[in-house]
Amino acid sequence: MHPAEYPGEIRSLLAHLKRLPGIGPRAAERLTLHLLEEKPALASELAKALEAAVTEVRACDICGFFCSHQRTCALCADPERSGEILCVVEQPADVLRLDRTGAFQGKYHVLGGRLSPLDNVHPEDLRLASLWRRVETAGVTEVILAVGSDVEGEATAHYVRDHLARFPHVKVTRLAQGLPAGGSLDHTDEITLHRALRDRRVL
Amino acid sequence: MHPAEYPGEIRSLLAHLKRLPGIGPRAAERLTLHLLEEKPALASELAKALEAAVTEVRACDICGFFCSHQRTCALCADPERSGEILCVVEQPADVLRLDRTGAFQGKYHVLGGRLSPLDNVHPEDLRLASLWRRVETAGVTEVILAVGSDVEGEATAHYVRDHLARFPHVKVTRLAQGLPAGGSLDHTDEITLHRALRDRRVL
Repeated sequence: MHPAEYPGEIRSLLAHLKRLPGIGPRAAERLTLHLLEEKPALASELAKALEAAVTEVRACDICGFFCSHQRTCALCADPERSGEILCVVEQPADVLRLDRTGAFQGKYHVLGGRLSPLDNVHPEDLRLASLWRRVETAGVTEVILAVGSDVEGEATAHYVRDHLARFPHVKVTRLAQGLPAGGSLDHTDEITLHRALRDRRVL
Repeated sequence: MHPAEYPGEIRSLLAHLKRLPGIGPRAAERLTLHLLEEKPALASELAKALEAAVTEVRACDICGFFCSHQRTCALCADPERSGEILCVVEQPADVLRLDRTGAFQGKYHVLGGRLSPLDNVHPEDLRLASLWRRVETAGVTEVILAVGSDVEGEATAHYVRDHLARFPHVKVTRLAQGLPAGGSLDHTDEITLHRALRDRRVL
């Protein structure tokens, strides 16, 4: 007697889904059955959307954000965005998060990660050469280091700051650290409180 | 100034992913960025696997389990599986779960859901007509109702049992209910304990 098993096409789909972050065997099965039994049209559209994204989307030659059908992105091409202030982020998604705040209207530079020797991420793995080039040639007056406030973010910020020291006319700044909006003191860790005190501002 | 946004291909992929069960906006973004930045080959393979599954996989004409490239599944075609005992389940995945136990070596029948008038699932929405036909014509001696023990499962089991009453030679059984393996009494709800007591067995 042969044990029950799914047809090869389903086993292949399950195997591919399980390779995605945050998708375990049960989630992969739930997704597969949902698509096959209830939403075959969605599955087909999803397949086409995946293929289109992977074929058409590339990193902007200038800033590293996503673009499609062109070598540079809509942000770099936008004449209303000032190129004087560069906001350096780790990931493309950070661009959207910062831009939604409305607090920044300049241009971005996506490193594509942060320095982490333990994970084998070294300076040559980040979009740094093009950052030095932009700062040198594009009339940049300020570089905002909008990287995370964890150890790797700190290391990345210090590395970039040290390298930009050879451009003394360029101000290098870092996102403020302190209490999150709505945060009470008893839910805030000691390091955050320390930084919030250190960087206190005049009211 | 235009606000930052992803290229159309990424927005489309995000929109499709968010329509999947258990995938919210953040998970959709995480999956998309992972595929685009680290695993473009996986994205392409996943697209092909999705398309193949949705194109090739269909429900077996006899039992409703998945099959591909044929009108009936490998289980129904297996001569070593007895057709005398039919195990009725709600979903295709249940077939694999039961079969893995090794406790059943007969054939299956997948209803494709369970009766739930509140969710607009009525008898005509389930694979019931072909179940009556199988019982009538295929020499079935026992029908095991391996549906869930929740309200909808109970309703489905009673509905099927009542309809099979016109075949008095066919025994209709139901999965045992009681303590789960490794379950202690203080973690077991009252209804389960009641059923475990009612169906106690001689040691």
